[in-house]
Amino acid sequence: MDKIYRVNMTDQTCKLETVPAEWAPHGGRGLTSTIVAAEVPPTCDALGPNNKLVFAPGLLTGTAAAQSGRLSAGAKSPLTGTIKESNAGGTAAQQLARLGIKAIIIEGKPADNKWYSLHVTNSGITVQEENELVGKGNFAVIEALEGRLGKKIGVISIGQAGEFLMTASNISVKDPDSKIRSHGRGGLGAVMGSKRIKFISVDDAGAPGVVVSDPDKFKVAARTFAKALLDHPVSGQGLPTYGTNVLVNILNEAGGLPTRNFTTGQFEFHDKISGETMHDIIAARGGKTKHGCHPGCVIQCSQVYPDPEGKYLTSGFEYETIWGLGADCCINELDDIAKADNIMDDIGVDSIETAVMFGVAMEAGILPFGDGKGVQRLLTDEIAVGTPLGRILGNGAGSVGRTYGVVRTPVVKNQGIPAYDPRSVKGIGVTYATSTMGADHTSGYTIATNILNVGGHVDPLKKEGQVELSRNLQIATAAVDSTGMCIFVAFPALDIPECLPALIDMLNARFGINLTGDDVIALGKYILKTEHEFNRKAGFNNAHDRLPEFFKYEPVAPHNALWDFSDEELDEFWNF
Amino acid sequence: MDKIYRVNMTDQTCKLETVPAEWAPHGGRGLTSTIVAAEVPPTCDALGPNNKLVFAPGLLTGTAAAQSGRLSAGAKSPLTGTIKESNAGGTAAQQLARLGIKAIIIEGKPADNKWYSLHVTNSGITVQEENELVGKGNFAVIEALEGRLGKKIGVISIGQAGEFLMTASNISVKDPDSKIRSHGRGGLGAVMGSKRIKFISVDDAGAPGVVVSDPDKFKVAARTFAKALLDHPVSGQGLPTYGTNVLVNILNEAGGLPTRNFTTGQFEFHDKISGETMHDIIAARGGKTKHGCHPGCVIQCSQVYPDPEGKYLTSGFEYETIWGLGADCCINELDDIAKADNIMDDIGVDSIETAVMFGVAMEAGILPFGDGKGVQRLLTDEIAVGTPLGRILGNGAGSVGRTYGVVRTPVVKNQGIPAYDPRSVKGIGVTYATSTMGADHTSGYTIATNILNVGGHVDPLKKEGQVELSRNLQIATAAVDSTGMCIFVAFPALDIPECLPALIDMLNARFGINLTGDDVIALGKYILKTEHEFNRKAGFNNAHDRLPEFFKYEPVAPHNALWDFSDEELDEFWNF
Repeated sequence: MDKIYRVNMTDQTCKLETVPAEWAPHGGRGLTSTIVAAEVPPTCDALGPNNKLVFAPGLLTGTAAAQSGRLSAGAKSPLTGTIKESNAGGTAAQQLARLGIKAIIIEGKPADNKWYSLHVTNSGITVQEENELVGKGNFAVIEALEGRLGKKIGVISIGQAGEFLMTASNISVKDPDSKIRSHGRGGLGAVMGSKRIKFISVDDAGAPGVVVSDPDKFKVAARTFAKALLDHPVSGQGLPTYGTNVLVNILNEAGGLPTRNFTTGQFEFHDKISGETMHDIIAARGGKTKHGCHPGCVIQCSQVYPDPEGKYLTSGFEYETIWGLGADCCINELDDIAKADNIMDDIGVDSIETAVMFGVAMEAGILPFGDGKGVQRLLTDEIAVGTPLGRILGNGAGSVGRTYGVVRTPVVKNQGIPAYDPRSVKGIGVTYATSTMGADHTSGYTIATNILNVGGHVDPLKKEGQVELSRNLQIATAAVDSTGMCIFVAFPALDIPECLPALIDMLNARFGINLTGDDVIALGKYILKTEHEFNRKAGFNNAHDRLPEFFKYEPVAPHNALWDFSDEELDEFWNF
Repeated sequence: MDKIYRVNMTDQTCKLETVPAEWAPHGGRGLTSTIVAAEVPPTCDALGPNNKLVFAPGLLTGTAAAQSGRLSAGAKSPLTGTIKESNAGGTAAQQLARLGIKAIIIEGKPADNKWYSLHVTNSGITVQEENELVGKGNFAVIEALEGRLGKKIGVISIGQAGEFLMTASNISVKDPDSKIRSHGRGGLGAVMGSKRIKFISVDDAGAPGVVVSDPDKFKVAARTFAKALLDHPVSGQGLPTYGTNVLVNILNEAGGLPTRNFTTGQFEFHDKISGETMHDIIAARGGKTKHGCHPGCVIQCSQVYPDPEGKYLTSGFEYETIWGLGADCCINELDDIAKADNIMDDIGVDSIETAVMFGVAMEAGILPFGDGKGVQRLLTDEIAVGTPLGRILGNGAGSVGRTYGVVRTPVVKNQGIPAYDPRSVKGIGVTYATSTMGADHTSGYTIATNILNVGGHVDPLKKEGQVELSRNLQIATAAVDSTGMCIFVAFPALDIPECLPALIDMLNARFGINLTGDDVIALGKYILKTEHEFNRKAGFNNAHDRLPEFFKYEPVAPHNALWDFSDEELDEFWNF
């Protein structure tokens, strides 16, 4: 992967650049964050001409390594004002990697009000005016592009939400079944919309492919790695059987399932929305209980969820979405949540931000708690068409909270808090507070150790050890996010001794280098510090590494837990 | 003035407290900022139970000193997140001062969803449930309270916007003609609304009055002071004749009149909205070209603006409002602007924030530029009733900009930039960037020296001397804001040698003390630093002392001026 394409949307030109030496060792999140930190003025307007949108496949993407097909997207976030990296599955990452593309940097902004598309092929990138698909949802974009360019075409697109510059908008990536995976968090769809790019097509015909430096060593390591994934109870059994939604019952039992806009920690109807129930519904209706978001996935945590007639309803139906519309909005019909999930995919809004948002909207009185049909109606009739109410909602939880004066608005750095109550699972609270990206469970998933007893156990209700746990996981995650691996490789990596060395062996075999475990930790620290420094320059400081005030004075049942970290304890996080 | 009342809205009780020694020398802004800094956690939610709303008359309020009748309101601002002081005329300040009340501190928040009112008399403060006037505009509140409590009653109230917790909402104060003056900026109406207080009545029957320590000395100083006010061409001629709206033609001539949402610096129809035109209209229709916002005002910059039939249309019709709806929104019918001004008074929104907001809303396509009737309709049919669009608009310019993704959103710390283009009047840009309150022209009114040649002249188009000018004026203003004096005393104070010593003599005669000019400067510095420290603790730093990015790359006609201060140059401001 030796090409960097720089697309200037001010004059709609594209340049091929060689990879600077200091960027060469990086991929995925490490590369997007390095480029954004180097080239984007931290105080710029995230929707203005000086922000840049960067796509980069991971270091192992395009190889045969299991789970390595993720694409990173990076920019200054219009939602949080921080640096942002969001990664997604789908087919585009592997296609870009096979084309030898290390990164695409999109900068500037057209002076006219026209819409454009980018077309990535083995000959380069062209910019074309686009009219037909503007205003359309992601599914229509994918269908139309497959018609225009063939079934194999890779697609990166925005829905109506991205066109409207909504800060809950995501960037969608076509998956192997022509459905959708998402760069969900941080409103990157609005950045793509601000560049006036409706979609990017990726055609890897004639691509040189990825060259592995030591194929034999790679093959051995890849086999060990895949075995570890399949041997671990979470990645080998729990996730493949029940999907990420296995967590509903687990978090409910732990009293950490935020319910009714974070007013209590258990949901009366948890059984009706659980992974176990979902599995049985999918099986009974003839859907797919297992599904990979990209070729080469062995965990297969995704699924295809059909309606009662057996027709496609949604896929990539995740715990955080189901938690959010389920427990947090008190909707106890899984079919209603699935319908909403499908609409969110189509119009291109982050299903976490949007679910948290609906909890706040219900508290604000915009619709009643439990109103699943109301959620669908607001998505299609308001957000998708950009009405004033749709704009408020499509800008996320913080937008609704600010606009309606709701004090109980669960956001950090204006990004909605997902699926795990920080008062009763304190490690994840440290991650929410300190993450360089705003509230983001994936940036340091302490649930592994707090709740699932992976990598040991740290009592979720006590403060002891949480800062260290979150720090170690955030460092490790930043490194993993650079490889193109999905985050679930962390489960075996924390418990099975052969797993992490095998991952490092694959990197070494791929590039003919000699990384050690310490190098990987150093990489993770470099990424976090690079991102943190960007945020500092953008105006963030320790006072922003805090949870919303209400967590400090509203105890949450069943443990009557409060968020009780002092500022000093939290600020210890960055002491490395 | 020796009483502090502390009203706890959590249990609706009130306590009388003696004045702590360290608060004794303070009044007005100095006192509200001291109390807020001492008692409000800087990172608290501004609409949550831990914010406090403080009212304090100035040090000279209640005496016979000209221009001394202003009331300060302070809190953490829900609009800016900073500390906030906003002062207003009207009759309440003098009534509170005569009652011996140095400050009222309102804290907590009712657990029920009921509305309340406060009643201030010589016997103390009572809290009563209020139902009848909830949902009503300010004019109806005043009319009803005069019916209930007599024509002389003082009224401090919020309109529907404050009830809806909108961050452009203001706090209204009844003026001598039962019309309205406003604590306009910073969304303090939402803080009052979050405390669930619809209004405060003030009855000064039986009040002890203000005791002046040395009445003879006071009388002499007061006479010298009033003479200086009348002798200065701005406070003695320009303002009394044309009101603050004298500035339309002056700023247009200077090329610093932000027009069409800050895209150019001159307005084609400036003559139609100028102070000169307004004077002639008022005179022709039999209105009042001069009017004081409180008893004892000798400048009389206000006016009563009638409709073509000679009936009351609005009063307190200020330059910034007329600029905002006029030049910035391209509305060239003064009657349309006057109607909108009256509606804004009634529903209780800041007419500066709201005017700037409409400019952004027009750019966002919500209504066309120049649509005066549309502005009135959005005020009455959307903001006043709290529709989704009304919520977006009622939360100010930043809210519209964020919700619609408008990059050209003229705000600093989320507060709308008023009436003077910072690219072509650079001193005021320094004030906007560095003020402890977000963009606020009154916090350091460099227009005096940049444009009006008061206190010398500093070329508005050059950077030289602007930081020092803004700093000196911000220090002086903080001190003046503590006296209860209106800001226009600055004009004679800057030019007429006898004026400032007379003001200091009045303070000394009032309290039997011996302040010097240096003490006054020290007071101003203390206030700014106290406010700045609060903001620091709330998470603000130098990176927030900046103008919006577009001012750096969009030159403004006719001078093609850019905002060209470096970060380092701006950061020099706090070097004192």
